[in-house]
Amino acid sequence: MKAILVIGDGLADRPLKELGWKTPLEAAQKPSLNQIAKTGVCGIMDPISPGMPPGSDTATLALLGYDVLRVYSGRGAFEAIGSGINVLSGDVAFRCNFATVDENLIVLDRRAGRIANEDASELAESLQKIKLKEPEIEFLFENTVQHRAVLIVRNHGLSPIVSDSDPGKVGEGVLKVKPLDKSSEAKLTAEIVNELMHEFHKILKEHPVNNERVKRGLLPANMILCRGAGSVPEIKPLSQIYGIRSACVGATPLVRGVCKAAGMKLIDVKGATGTPQTDFMAKAKATTQAIKTNDFVLLHVKATDVASHDGKVKQKIEMIEKIDRMLGYVLGNIDLDSTYLAVTADHTTSSLTGNHEGDPVPIAITGPYVRTDDVEKYDERACAKGGLNRIKGIDLMPILMNLIGKTKKFGA
Amino acid sequence: MKAILVIGDGLADRPLKELGWKTPLEAAQKPSLNQIAKTGVCGIMDPISPGMPPGSDTATLALLGYDVLRVYSGRGAFEAIGSGINVLSGDVAFRCNFATVDENLIVLDRRAGRIANEDASELAESLQKIKLKEPEIEFLFENTVQHRAVLIVRNHGLSPIVSDSDPGKVGEGVLKVKPLDKSSEAKLTAEIVNELMHEFHKILKEHPVNNERVKRGLLPANMILCRGAGSVPEIKPLSQIYGIRSACVGATPLVRGVCKAAGMKLIDVKGATGTPQTDFMAKAKATTQAIKTNDFVLLHVKATDVASHDGKVKQKIEMIEKIDRMLGYVLGNIDLDSTYLAVTADHTTSSLTGNHEGDPVPIAITGPYVRTDDVEKYDERACAKGGLNRIKGIDLMPILMNLIGKTKKFGA
Repeated sequence: MKAILVIGDGLADRPLKELGWKTPLEAAQKPSLNQIAKTGVCGIMDPISPGMPPGSDTATLALLGYDVLRVYSGRGAFEAIGSGINVLSGDVAFRCNFATVDENLIVLDRRAGRIANEDASELAESLQKIKLKEPEIEFLFENTVQHRAVLIVRNHGLSPIVSDSDPGKVGEGVLKVKPLDKSSEAKLTAEIVNELMHEFHKILKEHPVNNERVKRGLLPANMILCRGAGSVPEIKPLSQIYGIRSACVGATPLVRGVCKAAGMKLIDVKGATGTPQTDFMAKAKATTQAIKTNDFVLLHVKATDVASHDGKVKQKIEMIEKIDRMLGYVLGNIDLDSTYLAVTADHTTSSLTGNHEGDPVPIAITGPYVRTDDVEKYDERACAKGGLNRIKGIDLMPILMNLIGKTKKFGA
Repeated sequence: MKAILVIGDGLADRPLKELGWKTPLEAAQKPSLNQIAKTGVCGIMDPISPGMPPGSDTATLALLGYDVLRVYSGRGAFEAIGSGINVLSGDVAFRCNFATVDENLIVLDRRAGRIANEDASELAESLQKIKLKEPEIEFLFENTVQHRAVLIVRNHGLSPIVSDSDPGKVGEGVLKVKPLDKSSEAKLTAEIVNELMHEFHKILKEHPVNNERVKRGLLPANMILCRGAGSVPEIKPLSQIYGIRSACVGATPLVRGVCKAAGMKLIDVKGATGTPQTDFMAKAKATTQAIKTNDFVLLHVKATDVASHDGKVKQKIEMIEKIDRMLGYVLGNIDLDSTYLAVTADHTTSSLTGNHEGDPVPIAITGPYVRTDDVEKYDERACAKGGLNRIKGIDLMPILMNLIGKTKKFGA
């Protein structure tokens, strides 16, 4: 027995007036998702805890069965690990954005117009050349996808207990990074990052790539915003907990980082980008391929979340319909007598507020021996009537592992 | 976005033979409650934990989002705080009743015939004049509403780990207060309270007010029963947790004390008494007024619980119908496009046993962006089929705060 877990990032939503008070899931054409609901057991799930809006990192960790409220150690480390950067114990990693600021360091665009990979790579390369005042401190700056990047500061005596430089909002000024406790480690870390932010800006604002961008009518990526300082989490790999071989099909560095930290094999898929332009069918094929040699495969799709953050309801529906066709392929190309297929979201993202919200997400599990229920549609409200009732994210992995015979009896 | 939480004290019940196996909620005419269920998302809720009968203090604390099993420090302190008494750190506070006992100190009525406020005040004043043997120990005795009163003992070296003098039942003898651990503090506290109980009885049994009551055919309030020793709980105010301004509309000192401990503003409403004779419409008006300047208002109604404790099923139904009209006013006088309205109970009170029971309570939340369900009636059984499924009391506040955009994302 094997299991595939499909996570639609920010797939769930709230009812929207423009959809006649339906959610995007309710409004979409989604025969395969409905088939999974119809042939499976459904429910709703609080990724972490009722009402608590999760990040994609904390939610994915929870859906992999970890107690995030205990083990979570900041998002920066996951982003870095997921980007293939070797994060060492003691490193402090930040999640960064290329951003656009005005001459007073007021943020005009937190994503520098979603800058293309090529421009971001060239800028990142220049930034790596900076020499810090403290020569024994190393740093690594690497762009990942589009405006996203990773900063690692490396030395003995650093601490992730520091604040963000990213104000999180357009129209506000770039923040000084501050120590969040009284340790000398946090103080030093904040000083180094502030020095780096300053040097980065000096290079970026004069950079030929940005001059060229402005000529082309694009926003210059003249600032680096950093947030989510973190260090490597200490968690047991899934292989050790359940005795399984597992793999992840996903393009988003943050999610790949979580999966790698869980000891999963990362599968690179050509054309998988973590954007609405991702190659859904390539991911489907990679998944059906991966399940042949693994007990558990996580298939993650970022596109739905991107659409909701941007408030693009029509695009979110399109992405749901593409996920549906992707699942159609998966259903047609796995052995349904020996494979469980679970579909859920890591969190609700409201297309109205553009934020992650703490509302529960739908969950459906189909496969040979589930206790099917009466639910015939895959959406937030239909699944709420399902046989799983309301579960927590941390319970999903044990439920799936139990179905495929990988849990151990507790007691006699 | 704002939220109003209406708590009907002991609103939920068990099916009763005399109502053709309906519950009082199922038997009542309640168009407004049904409208809230119909336009909202429903569920059932375990105020603390399945099967655990909560007090009104622990349940209200839980419904405000606190982990009562960890922070609860006895009801006495809440009763006192809610009565406007300044409880200091280290004080031990007791919840007291004026009661009627016979010459052998057997309890004949635990509420001295629900003695009127005027009689209780005059008696309380006499009791405050007692001089204790240990001169450095201070005490405060104040009546609150009807038979209810508060006793505070104040000194260094006291402890709330002592038992009650209230046997909790008619027909049983008044109990000696005993230390519940081996500390000298608990021993001293028990001794002081026993001395006070003895002195109180000596004064009360000869008191002219009681002689007058007997002449009028009323029960004499010739004993003080004390229970629920407690000290001030250490909890963060709601303003600090969610960044909200909040207020409480309620008359019961115990509930007011919980709300005050949570940092809520207490609103005094003329005619609100915590009894079945309370002015429901005045409370409704106070609530619609308060929500204009607050993010969150708790509206508490005691009357349903009073009726159930007394086994008055018809009165309980009447109280539910009054709550319904109260809610009709609230619904008609708030901005439903920007206000969430949640209605629940703090616990089930069985009109048959007269006790708080550990059965779940119904919950319905209406408001602009809830995921509505098929539930059309507000009662224990209809709500059990709702989209919220089964939640815990501690989760309610995060759910409401998430709806009004006051929760913080955990993770990236």
